[in-house]
Formats: sequence, C-alpha cells, structure tokens
Amino acid sequence: MKAIAVEPGAGTPSLIDLPVPEPAPGEALVRTLRVGVDGTDDEVIAGGHGGVPDGDDRLVLGHEAVGVVEDPNGTDLEEGQYVVPTVRRPPPDVETNVYFERGEPDMAPEGAYVERGIVGAHGFMAEYFTSPADCLVPISADLAPVGFLVEPISITEKAIEHAAAARSAFDWQPESVLVLGNGSLGLLTAAMFRTTMGYDRVYCLGRRDRPHPSIAILDELDVTYIDSRETSVPEIPEVYEPMDVVYEATGYAKHAFESIEALAPNGVAALLGVPGDWSFEVDGGRLHREMVLHNKAVVGSVNSNRDHFASAIDTLAGLPSWVIEDVVSGVYGLEEYERAFSDPTDDATADDDTTIKTAVEFSNI
Amino acid sequence: MKAIAVEPGAGTPSLIDLPVPEPAPGEALVRTLRVGVDGTDDEVIAGGHGGVPDGDDRLVLGHEAVGVVEDPNGTDLEEGQYVVPTVRRPPPDVETNVYFERGEPDMAPEGAYVERGIVGAHGFMAEYFTSPADCLVPISADLAPVGFLVEPISITEKAIEHAAAARSAFDWQPESVLVLGNGSLGLLTAAMFRTTMGYDRVYCLGRRDRPHPSIAILDELDVTYIDSRETSVPEIPEVYEPMDVVYEATGYAKHAFESIEALAPNGVAALLGVPGDWSFEVDGGRLHREMVLHNKAVVGSVNSNRDHFASAIDTLAGLPSWVIEDVVSGVYGLEEYERAFSDPTDDATADDDTTIKTAVEFSNI
Repeated sequence: MKAIAVEPGAGTPSLIDLPVPEPAPGEALVRTLRVGVDGTDDEVIAGGHGGVPDGDDRLVLGHEAVGVVEDPNGTDLEEGQYVVPTVRRPPPDVETNVYFERGEPDMAPEGAYVERGIVGAHGFMAEYFTSPADCLVPISADLAPVGFLVEPISITEKAIEHAAAARSAFDWQPESVLVLGNGSLGLLTAAMFRTTMGYDRVYCLGRRDRPHPSIAILDELDVTYIDSRETSVPEIPEVYEPMDVVYEATGYAKHAFESIEALAPNGVAALLGVPGDWSFEVDGGRLHREMVLHNKAVVGSVNSNRDHFASAIDTLAGLPSWVIEDVVSGVYGLEEYERAFSDPTDDATADDDTTIKTAVEFSNI
Repeated sequence: MKAIAVEPGAGTPSLIDLPVPEPAPGEALVRTLRVGVDGTDDEVIAGGHGGVPDGDDRLVLGHEAVGVVEDPNGTDLEEGQYVVPTVRRPPPDVETNVYFERGEPDMAPEGAYVERGIVGAHGFMAEYFTSPADCLVPISADLAPVGFLVEPISITEKAIEHAAAARSAFDWQPESVLVLGNGSLGLLTAAMFRTTMGYDRVYCLGRRDRPHPSIAILDELDVTYIDSRETSVPEIPEVYEPMDVVYEATGYAKHAFESIEALAPNGVAALLGVPGDWSFEVDGGRLHREMVLHNKAVVGSVNSNRDHFASAIDTLAGLPSWVIEDVVSGVYGLEEYERAFSDPTDDATADDDTTIKTAVEFSNI
C-alpha cells in the first residue's frame, strides 16, 4: 500500500510502499479516507518536533484521520463503520499505564505515551492502518468527508473544558472571547465560539491583509478581525474590550504573556502553541500583580482524549456547513499529495497564499 | 474610643480618639477583641497600597479581626456572639452590586468594592466597629482568642479552591506541595497542607538561617525547609521533586514565572503576592511550551468571601494547637501597640527578628 512518510533531515515527505498492516487482537483494520495536514506536520517534517518509532528510520505522517472499518477483527466495531482515530498510544514497552486506564492519555507526561504520526509511532497517512478498537471513535457517514477536522476540533474542546474548569469555583459569565491566530485552528475555534457556543462578541487576531479567505470567513461569522500589526495584544482592551477568554493558537511566546493583559478581571487564557526557546523581557511585576488582583488564570493544554473527540463530532455536526467548506481549501489525491503540504520555501503569511486547511485523500468515500 | 490609624505619608500608625460608631439598620455593633497585623498593613502604612476613605484624611487600620457582638441592633446575631468580619464592602456610592449579591465580593473588579482597613473604608483597629450582620461570621468562644487568623487562612482557602478547580477537568491526584514564603501566611498554609489537608510531601521555601522559630515550626510539622539561597525555585524539581501544587506568598515577581518550572506535569501554581512593577528577562518560549506540553495552570487569587471564612474557621479548629501558639509570636495591648507593627527601619529578614505573627488586643476576651 502507499504511505506518506518523512525521513529525519529530508525536509519533505515522500510516497513509500508498505505492506498492508495486520490487526493484532483487539485492533481493527481501517481503510483510510482522508488525513488532514496541520502545523504539527510541518514541524515534524522540518525536524523541530516529533520522532521516528524505535528501530525505524522514517515516520509515516498523519494524526488527523478519518477512515472506514475494513475488518473489525472480532472487535465491537462493524465493517463499513466510519471512524476517527485518537492520537496517543501507550509507549511500546508497556501495555497501558494509569493515564490510559483513566481514559486521559492527554494528561500523560512525556515518556508515558507515543503520538501516532508525530512521535514514536507511525501515523495514519497510509491506505490502511490498524488501531485498538477503543481508540476509534465512530462518526456518521454524512460527516465522514470532513472527519479529519475532528482531531483539531477536539484539541479546542479540551482547551475550553480546562479553561472553563479553571473558572468553576465562582459564578463566571464570560461574554467576550479573543482567538489569537487565524490559521485553520483559530478559524475553527472562532467559529465554535460564535456558533455552537453562542458567544456574541468574538475577536480573532491575525497578521494578514484583506482580502484574504480567512478574514472573509471571520467577516461572515461576524467575528471582529484584529490585525496585530495595527493593534497589539496588550492594546486590545483599550481599543476593543477586555476579554473574558483568550485562546492562543499562534505559538508566538510573547502572546502567552500579553494574554494576561488582554484579559478582563476573572478571565482565563488557554495556551496551545508550542514555541521554541526565546528569551525576552517582561514586566513580570505588573503581570504577577495583575494575575492576583484580578483573579486571572492561564492554562496550558495539549492533545485531547476520546471524550473530546466525541464532543468534537457533535461540534462538527453543529458548525455551519459553509464554514467547513470555506476552511477546507483543498483535498488532494495521492497523485498530487505534495500540494497538501506547505512549501517550506514559502512564507506562510504571504498574502497570495490562500491555503487554509488541506487534506490528503487515500480512498474514495 | 481608641483606634489605630495612619495618615498618608506619616509612615507609622498612631493612636487616635474616635466616637463609638452607631450601627445603621442591618448592622451590629461589635466590641473588638484582637486584630492581626500582616504585610498588607505594612504596605498600607508605607503608602504603597490602599487609600483613605473619600473625604477623610486618615485610615483606621486592620482587616484581620475578631470581636464580640455588643449590640445586635435587631439583626439575627445575639449579644455575646463571637464574630469575624469579612473585609470587602460595596463602594460608598452603591448599595450593592452583582458580586456582593452573588456572595462573591472577592471576584469584584477594582472600583466595585472597598476593603476595610486597606482601601476606601476604615478597618477594625478600634475598640468598637459596626458591620452589616451578613459580613460577620460566627466563631466559637474557644477559637475567639485566635480568631484574627481566620482572615489570612480564608485567603488560602480561596486560593486552594481556585487552584483545585483549575484541575477539576481530569483525575488529578496531587501529592507534593511547595509553599513559597515562610512568613505567617506561608507557615499557616504549609501547616494546612500538612495537617488538615493531609499531604505527606510539603516543602516551604524561605531565606532565613537556622535556628529560626519559623523553621522550627516547619521541622516540627515535617515540612521540608528549602533555603532559596541554596536552591533556587527552578532547581527544586531536580534537587527535591517536581511539585503538583505551588503556592506563592512572597510577592517576589520572579517566583510567579519560576513556579512554572517547579511544577510537575498537570500541576497548578496559585499566586497571591502583589508585587510592584519590575521588568526582567524570562525564557518565555520555554515557559510557554512547558505550560502547554505539560498541561500546567497558573491562577491568581485575591481576597476571600464568607464561605472561605467559614472554611477557615473549620481549618483553624483542625490545626494543631501548638502550630497556632508558635505562629502567634506576640499579642500586644493598646499601651504597647507599636510592638505589633514591624519597625520600617528594620530589615524584616534579619535573623535576629523572631517575629512571626502579631496582633493588637483591644479588649479582654
């Protein structure tokens, strides 16, 4: 079967041939339909993040997949069931651990998991993959064509769950939300806040010129686009309003600290980006004081578990179909899979780049 | 009646004469027993924090009080009932607001409250004070002599409640706790974690040489004392262990950021200090990444509400009596009230300073 893999140092993915995998007991064989591409894939390809499985010299990419059960192999799944796989698995040397037993692999520390398509385990960018049946979340046939959006949406489901929990000790009534970043995750999240969660006042910060398809989506959603080149994050409360929620999806480390200044009293910032080391000066006294005197909270969030995938499927069903259609800017067959990946020589913020979210199609639905 | 007040700029409190206050409808008249002194009083006296009531030129100090109802004035309280007053009240121009209506004045933003003895309203350092009956929390006669500890303990009750809430979205089983600061609040908090909350592994960071009475209390509690001059906060996970909870009570702004490095995966830091502006360099990329990849949370917490006062009374009843006796290093009558306040010309960290927690006694119990 065909698969898309990357060798450390190669800098670009390539199409390889692999045998169709055999499901172990408790695993099903899944025929892959579509697999999304995101910034994590870019980082894995560039070598800044992730790693090949032990004893292998390349990594099959892909962690945002949707497929159809080809062989249930004695599990509770049925042949023909559409499914979305979760990403984390126990490390190769153990059967399970307390985080997986609790259904919370997303809370496992480093070393207590591998991530399919990212670190230590092959991903889903192959014509077939196997997975333990309990890591396959059923999805309806009508959502299957965009089922590759379930994993990124689940990341937001978890972050919002944790942010809301951080405000659960008092009567919190959030009204204003700022999403930092207008990439595909930022757009999906802004759309969630505006539609399925029903917030009236949603803002999204980016650094692109109009016209751009991502800003057109925000306009259509009635989400206020903030150009970071015109208004910096700390200026946002003055120019717009203080924010009850800040959701950071830029990976720009200064945003983690500036978020505290953008928050309204009793607000919460959810951080999702994974920046590299970067030292800079902050007014730490002011930020510390502001956190305390105004009861502010900051929560980091990574990955997601099966419950978040299930919530994400509900969210996907509730999002306006035009948002999904406009966010998915391209689905490419195996014969042109390169088009799904960003060209590393491109400036991803170039205004002529109208790519938002891409996927590779491995077989027809 | 006698009262202890400070004029802005004076730098030291003074004893003044005031008329005994008349309770308004809904208020009771309370005879003051004892009022504790803490770092906030020092800041108010030094002029770095707080402010006099509108139209007045001095502020009666004191926000950690215990008293006895002298005149219930038609409220549900009974004459002779021991009570502890909460600190926040609605601003003078309004009857109430949504935060007070919810019973959560601790979540009110600046401008939506005054604080008795701190900002905008006279405190409890007077032979009598009046208070709305619903801001007076009953306390038993046996706890009344140390009832001035209820307010500081309530501050920790709230911070811990908010920190735990921030971890309530998953199965969190914290085992290790680091308290930053071995002043009276740090000691009381370390004692709470070790005794009433039952943590086995509690650490407390300070910067004093042995022997010192505060370290003797930690030793007796089986809390590990960490000298910050020997082990910095970021080194603590390596030298001791990563911490599931960090509780910051130093007001030292770098600790707010270093706490992130001291935390174990999925841990939470509660910040309580109120530092002034101070710019310094941080490895913001590393801190941001660490927050995200290890699901860490940081929550700021200020003040406390009536429920936290009620919890604090339960905690006070549960703390070993020797801890209370050793933490309270001095209770001084009005004739020697100056001894209850730190000498602003002293270095508070001098090793010959054996003061931990002081109070002024206004009348015999």
